Amino acid sequence: MALMASIFGTLFRVSTWGESHGGGVGCVIDGCPSRLPITAEEIQVELDRRRPGQSDIVTPRQEEDTCRILSGVFQGQTLGTPILVAVDNKDARPSAYTEMETMFRPSHADFTYQTKYGIRNWEGGGRSSARETIGRVAAGVVARKVIRTLHPSYEVVAYVRSIHDLESDVDPATVTTTEVDATPVRCPDPKAAEAMIARIKEVRSRGDSIGGIIECVVRGVPPSLGEPVFDKLEADLAKAMMSLPATKGFEIGSGFAGSRLTGSEHNDAFVIEAGKVTTATNRSGGIQGGISNGEHIFFRVAFKPTATIAKSQQTVTVEGEPAELAARGRHDACVLPRAVPMVEAMVNLVICDHLLRQHGQNVLP
Amino acid sequence: MALMASIFGTLFRVSTWGESHGGGVGCVIDGCPSRLPITAEEIQVELDRRRPGQSDIVTPRQEEDTCRILSGVFQGQTLGTPILVAVDNKDARPSAYTEMETMFRPSHADFTYQTKYGIRNWEGGGRSSARETIGRVAAGVVARKVIRTLHPSYEVVAYVRSIHDLESDVDPATVTTTEVDATPVRCPDPKAAEAMIARIKEVRSRGDSIGGIIECVVRGVPPSLGEPVFDKLEADLAKAMMSLPATKGFEIGSGFAGSRLTGSEHNDAFVIEAGKVTTATNRSGGIQGGISNGEHIFFRVAFKPTATIAKSQQTVTVEGEPAELAARGRHDACVLPRAVPMVEAMVNLVICDHLLRQHGQNVLP
Amino acid sequence: MALMASIFGTLFRVSTWGESHGGGVGCVIDGCPSRLPITAEEIQVELDRRRPGQSDIVTPRQEEDTCRILSGVFQGQTLGTPILVAVDNKDARPSAYTEMETMFRPSHADFTYQTKYGIRNWEGGGRSSARETIGRVAAGVVARKVIRTLHPSYEVVAYVRSIHDLESDVDPATVTTTEVDATPVRCPDPKAAEAMIARIKEVRSRGDSIGGIIECVVRGVPPSLGEPVFDKLEADLAKAMMSLPATKGFEIGSGFAGSRLTGSEHNDAFVIEAGKVTTATNRSGGIQGGISNGEHIFFRVAFKPTATIAKSQQTVTVEGEPAELAARGRHDACVLPRAVPMVEAMVNLVICDHLLRQHGQNVLP
Amino acid sequence: MALMASIFGTLFRVSTWGESHGGGVGCVIDGCPSRLPITAEEIQVELDRRRPGQSDIVTPRQEEDTCRILSGVFQGQTLGTPILVAVDNKDARPSAYTEMETMFRPSHADFTYQTKYGIRNWEGGGRSSARETIGRVAAGVVARKVIRTLHPSYEVVAYVRSIHDLESDVDPATVTTTEVDATPVRCPDPKAAEAMIARIKEVRSRGDSIGGIIECVVRGVPPSLGEPVFDKLEADLAKAMMSLPATKGFEIGSGFAGSRLTGSEHNDAFVIEAGKVTTATNRSGGIQGGISNGEHIFFRVAFKPTATIAKSQQTVTVEGEPAELAARGRHDACVLPRAVPMVEAMVNLVICDHLLRQHGQNVLP
Repeated sequence: MALMASIFGTLFRVSTWGESHGGGVGCVIDGCPSRLPITAEEIQVELDRRRPGQSDIVTPRQEEDTCRILSGVFQGQTLGTPILVAVDNKDARPSAYTEMETMFRPSHADFTYQTKYGIRNWEGGGRSSARETIGRVAAGVVARKVIRTLHPSYEVVAYVRSIHDLESDVDPATVTTTEVDATPVRCPDPKAAEAMIARIKEVRSRGDSIGGIIECVVRGVPPSLGEPVFDKLEADLAKAMMSLPATKGFEIGSGFAGSRLTGSEHNDAFVIEAGKVTTATNRSGGIQGGISNGEHIFFRVAFKPTATIAKSQQTVTVEGEPAELAARGRHDACVLPRAVPMVEAMVNLVICDHLLRQHGQNVLP
Repeated sequence: MALMASIFGTLFRVSTWGESHGGGVGCVIDGCPSRLPITAEEIQVELDRRRPGQSDIVTPRQEEDTCRILSGVFQGQTLGTPILVAVDNKDARPSAYTEMETMFRPSHADFTYQTKYGIRNWEGGGRSSARETIGRVAAGVVARKVIRTLHPSYEVVAYVRSIHDLESDVDPATVTTTEVDATPVRCPDPKAAEAMIARIKEVRSRGDSIGGIIECVVRGVPPSLGEPVFDKLEADLAKAMMSLPATKGFEIGSGFAGSRLTGSEHNDAFVIEAGKVTTATNRSGGIQGGISNGEHIFFRVAFKPTATIAKSQQTVTVEGEPAELAARGRHDACVLPRAVPMVEAMVNLVICDHLLRQHGQNVLP
Repeated sequence: MALMASIFGTLFRVSTWGESHGGGVGCVIDGCPSRLPITAEEIQVELDRRRPGQSDIVTPRQEEDTCRILSGVFQGQTLGTPILVAVDNKDARPSAYTEMETMFRPSHADFTYQTKYGIRNWEGGGRSSARETIGRVAAGVVARKVIRTLHPSYEVVAYVRSIHDLESDVDPATVTTTEVDATPVRCPDPKAAEAMIARIKEVRSRGDSIGGIIECVVRGVPPSLGEPVFDKLEADLAKAMMSLPATKGFEIGSGFAGSRLTGSEHNDAFVIEAGKVTTATNRSGGIQGGISNGEHIFFRVAFKPTATIAKSQQTVTVEGEPAELAARGRHDACVLPRAVPMVEAMVNLVICDHLLRQHGQNVLP
Repeated sequence: MALMASIFGTLFRVSTWGESHGGGVGCVIDGCPSRLPITAEEIQVELDRRRPGQSDIVTPRQEEDTCRILSGVFQGQTLGTPILVAVDNKDARPSAYTEMETMFRPSHADFTYQTKYGIRNWEGGGRSSARETIGRVAAGVVARKVIRTLHPSYEVVAYVRSIHDLESDVDPATVTTTEVDATPVRCPDPKAAEAMIARIKEVRSRGDSIGGIIECVVRGVPPSLGEPVFDKLEADLAKAMMSLPATKGFEIGSGFAGSRLTGSEHNDAFVIEAGKVTTATNRSGGIQGGISNGEHIFFRVAFKPTATIAKSQQTVTVEGEPAELAARGRHDACVLPRAVPMVEAMVNLVICDHLLRQHGQNVLP
């Protein structure tokens, strides 16, 4: 469903642009329905959930990430033309990255970008920086508003399900964004959240980093979204999530655990509730045959520990000499708290695009 | 990277067509490089690994699945024009499906197709049938040959890693297709394979079904494949896998388990081996920053148990009445043995497309 | 708006496949709305308008071009899944083409296909044969029916406007398909038609060929179709026409002659008619700013004389030796009569795709 | 070949953004090869050929159109990542457009934008303004440099062939950009240029406008570019030209006049020159079967007279009342001088994209 490289979506098309260091970052949204009321302030709310420096457990880089809308909106409403959202790059300290010019950070994108492109912006993560996701988060706000205009009960709630070996207990059916945002770690289980925060601080103090799992529930999705056979809804969600930095796995509904059940245990019986076909259980995760069935969609995404750590690591230089590297930048010891709005944004982009596509194909009376 | 719905790929574009019951199934391959020697016989080899009736643990439906090439090949070589591969539908017994006209199979695509399209081919699985994957497997053979012409050491080996709760012990670095195909269950660990075969037969005798996990290793992938930020190589592999029937999860390299490690444990140190930059470990799974790094790519795909089972299940009719359904068709109690060539085919499609794209962007001296 | 190479359209996607000699030709239609009643017989009507041997002024090749629908239709209605339409190749006489193996026909595609692909199917025109348009014409019938279901007054009438230096007098506002098909040359001006028929026969008797101009009017197009800035409706029509074999030019509304007017002469004044905004004149040709305005769309397409002629011509061999070539195949001395349904088909594909796209973007209340 | 709406190209993808009034205009280039040296200054050269106020025969609006590169370039070289080029909007006088809020300009895009989107930026031409082409011209500079790096002899020269009824005499084989830019009207025939300049001034003084024809020759195009059957090179050129504002027709090689020739008159005989296959004549216009043959490509584009004129015209208001409109903005009485770089830019985009595509498909040894 991504058209290509830096363009995502078929009818609701988002291209992101920008490196972590350089003139700025942002997105262009092409194909947005017209007459949608939208302001930079609404977009800012989600950018603020994503930005560095928002709490004492994320990177202390001071990036305000204030966005401007440069086109596509007139008198507060979308024109149906491309919407450019731009955020300037400000708190750049390329000096923190001088080693990157000559060394490859282990498990980062330095080596592969250099190999593929023969050049890379070594003053930070360049295009592979999480800063690129600003454009995604901004576009996600617009996408969400399009969906909600047509389906007011639509809502996406992502949250930290586990960090390192710390699990939480959350009910996807009822969890709210308020609960998620109640703690800086964005785990809605307060007790688990406390332990996670302590763990992040402890790991950071050792110059190390940790990963975890984000779970996401999408409620109020209309049935009929998804286009088999290749653009199944779960396939596009998987792609969307695996395109986020640091992701290593995706599972929907019963997921990997579902592979250990029998069919009679796993199948979701159809039942009639309030005159409507529904399922008694939801191991399908809200999608059957690649198409939403009207139940909650829920899935999990695995994030690896941040690659850039202060601890000294073995690596090689651009010239192919063995070297030691200890990162000096101000990095997240754990990306998950800030990844929550990114996951939600990508869900919004996928659902909005499929919603428009459903309107575009399903036209006969 | 899928262009849309039934079209997959950007430069090496495959569209599949066909329902399980109807005139036939197949694919059109658009954008294939010219002058590739290819025959129907080469394609047939992989179709035979996919076809029903190949062993006593898969569905006994007798479908020969003999393919013909109707266009795009001249005197044994590709013309660079669209290649149509067609397989007739033969052993169709719509009578086995009469209940499907009026009832929705739980956890199958009947309900969602009916809801989305207002119509469905109920004489079998229609478009959601695994029979649709014939076109993918056929195209995968062509894709693989394109890749191997340029990178002779390229090879994909998928295999059954687990079935139900039965695990196997396989070394991805060395496993071969011969070992995989040594048993009908396509698990290259002979002892585990024996247990798996017994388990499948036992479950089938109870009218039930089981799922499992397929692991896949890709060796000889050149570095530099993958196009950040949306068409990261792992994102396109995830989408490709999650577009296969019955899949519920995807993980690459360290996967979900990687979320429990620290950065210092997880990072793959760069080292020089034989004058070449390589990684001491491979938790990245051969991809960093969305781009192949030249190491082995490996990933796992979770398959749910077959939805269509002989056991009686609770469901509803098209009219919304509660009903009981016990499927009478001849179905696989476990799809994994036949899904192995499907997984490999999708890998070939993704890698071939990204290989052509790399040739298409990386043109400057 | 063409996605790529052999795939046309964004939401209503048509891929054609097949060479003039080989297993057959046809198309796959992906993204067609479901529940559209459609039969092979309806498609056959238009294929018969396109086929060789239909009259004594077109090529006498006897190709029945009988089509079959192999997928995507169930009990007479579209399923919303890919529709494969296939036509077998029958009256092939590759012996008529043996010289083509070693020589390039002047102004044909032999040389460029050989240069680009390093191979070509020389048993006929291969992929550059007008036979490829069978798939377009078939898909055009389906597209037209989708449009008419939503806009019953929609109709496309193309006709031969001139042949060689013979002009006709036709009123685009009222011309009907019955008038067009009244003579084998498809010029609705009976007197001009007579002269054109005589001219074609005369030129053919000299072993030569002639070109001409097709004009096309589209009535009942709803306003709002077209997507600036690149997918303007006239841009997509231009591309569609210029993708047909033998076309050399496209003009819409006032066209090239419009370049000689002043703005005050050229502008279409807006007036109110029956409470509706309309234009007093229609030099815009029904499209303003790339978007249909509800007036008639009309345009002209220039076709060059058929490249393959019986007269002896100077050329070179594949080995680069000078040579003489006199084609022996049975070719049209003038392609225009058979090109009329091709032009109409491409209009249907463009309008249908933009109609679905309009439904897909214009979703807010 | 346009992907959709505001995105053009398949591998070399350009999206333009921006309205004539608002934050700015520009483009994002996605898929550009890496390590191309490029500066804002090089881009500025072409923007200056396009900008208002450059001479006394174009609109006197003072727009400097100074461009900035915000991403995708590092230390003077492309990174292979999206390149954002931005130009601020400065000399905006929305007061000149207040009537546009309530009235539709005849033959402009006001009515169709309002109808399609239900909203329009009436402070100028919005998205339909020629100002949108700034992004195209900027991207064209980058595209041209990619092509020239691989094919140094590549050059595009567009020029004004006629204005109103004033024709010029130009030899496409030898015409140079220096000759074209020698006069502000960009007609390389000095005598004709003089008359054209006088005519433009005379028409402008009457509050009217005029159109004309731009001819373009492309030299040094490598053979093998173009992808039949839909993405024929002439089809993509036609679309590219017809997507420019004010265009009404496109013809290539012999064009409409070619429709009056016989095959024996029209065909380009193949001959051997200096050991290379070439054509004795070039009525094909450098493209055969949709693929470049190595000869010069040349084509013509018809432009209508500017729609916005000072003369009073009949129109209707947004409320559907008859009205009189006399435009007060500062508009070009003839767009052709400024359209020359736009035509060249679109050629560069089409050729560059097809060049990359040729590298992407033609990969086998």
